[in-house]
This record gives sequence, C-alpha cells and structure tokens, in this order.
Amino acid sequence: MALYMDIHRKVEGLTEDAVAGAHAHDLAIQEKYGVNYLKYWYDEGSGTVFCLCEAPSKEAAEAVHREAHGLLAQEIIEVREGS
Amino acid sequence: MALYMDIHRKVEGLTEDAVAGAHAHDLAIQEKYGVNYLKYWYDEGSGTVFCLCEAPSKEAAEAVHREAHGLLAQEIIEVREGS
Repeated sequence: MALYMDIHRKVEGLTEDAVAGAHAHDLAIQEKYGVNYLKYWYDEGSGTVFCLCEAPSKEAAEAVHREAHGLLAQEIIEVREGS
Repeated sequence: MALYMDIHRKVEGLTEDAVAGAHAHDLAIQEKYGVNYLKYWYDEGSGTVFCLCEAPSKEAAEAVHREAHGLLAQEIIEVREGS
C-alpha cells in the first residue's frame, strides 16, 4: 500500500455538505478496490479538494472516485508523510 | 486561526532528510508568527511537498517558510478539514 494525495480543482457547486456526501460515497465502496480514504481538506471558494488515501495504486484510488461520484482529481501524487 | 494547505513544486534536492530538516526549522521559529505547522507530505521523485498548518493568515504561514529556510510554496490555499 502506498499513500497518495490528490488535488481536485474548480469543483462546481462545492459545499461542505456536497463534499461530505461525495466522501461518504468513497468510503462506502472503497473496500472493493482495497483503498482507504483517510482525510480530505476543501476550499469552497476556489472549489479545491485535497484527498489523502492509502491505496495499492494510483489507478485504484481513482477508480473509487470514478465509481463513487465521478469527480476525478486533476492530480494524484504518491507521497510519504513527514514524521 | 485558519487552516492552510500549501504546495511546493519541483523542490531541488528534495530528500527525506532535507525536508525533515526544513520542517524542523519551521517548527523552531513558527511561534514568532503565531503559526503551527501540523503535518507535511512529500514526493522525492517530483520534488513536491504539501504542508498543512494553522496560521492567522496566509502571509504569516509564508513568513515562517521564508525565515526558516527560504523555500516558499507556489500555492497556499485556505482549507477546512472534512469530518
């Protein structure tokens, strides 16, 4: 498993409730892809969302978003967490 | 206090030790600016670093990086953490 940070830009209609709803859909189906979405941070003004997840691959992380709500990130970057 | 995620791109010579050292310098001086750097994530391959911090303003968050090591982020986005 690797750790990934993704970045969504200019998400239309981004509100606290909308992003929470999308995240709940991720959580509901992620097990099928062996993914664990851990946290997210968002900015309603710019429509930006950062999602942090553990996943077997970048493609698996993306597959969860595709099936859960169809909102795909513009970037997915494999990262390590600083200690 | 607000929460900010910043993104550093193409940081030259980014290694685990180098980013840990830079982060330690942030922590050492951040109190002066009322900032609290919470976590960071990095990718050595692309030279990307994400820093999450609490700060009174974007400018204060940036001032810490400027004084600590001079490596400024290309973007600083005010965010809220998903629950």
